[in-house]
Amino acid sequence: MILEVADIRIHPGQQAAFEIAIAHGITSVISQAQGFGQARVLHGIESPERYLLQIEWATLEDHTEHFRGGPLFPQWRAIVGPFFAEPPRVEHFSIAG
Amino acid sequence: MILEVADIRIHPGQQAAFEIAIAHGITSVISQAQGFGQARVLHGIESPERYLLQIEWATLEDHTEHFRGGPLFPQWRAIVGPFFAEPPRVEHFSIAG
Repeated sequence: MILEVADIRIHPGQQAAFEIAIAHGITSVISQAQGFGQARVLHGIESPERYLLQIEWATLEDHTEHFRGGPLFPQWRAIVGPFFAEPPRVEHFSIAG
Repeated sequence: MILEVADIRIHPGQQAAFEIAIAHGITSVISQAQGFGQARVLHGIESPERYLLQIEWATLEDHTEHFRGGPLFPQWRAIVGPFFAEPPRVEHFSIAG
């Protein structure tokens, strides 16, 4: 299992709509992806336009190849992309402890 | 409950020693702190010197005031501080979903 961490900045004042959209995108799109485990959305306290989306995937390739290269990705980006103030910074992590 | 996320960069080649140290620091120091919930250490796949330390606290002040202002903080930094290549970037998050 690996963890995707997407560091997201949205346009100011869009928090409520974004939280509805991202929850919808996770439930309706990402949860259908091969290797999807679970997702968590964190909202910045010091930076109210900042969110961390953390998604567990069975393998790195389930995210980087199967999801990003498949038909679900454009569906996902259509739902959440309009809120992004800049491209999300995405890296992957293993659980060290 | 809030989540502290510390974005850590360590000196190259110190991963094994750092992982032992941070596990020791969590067990012996942070776990004693008021309001401590649980901790998770994530290790960067694309950035092998990068770690995310995620700690659940009962309240923001348990971290920012009680822990950082109390006697446990210097004990913690004595254990993990020598590994840091730069000051960790720390922000706090609420669970949005």
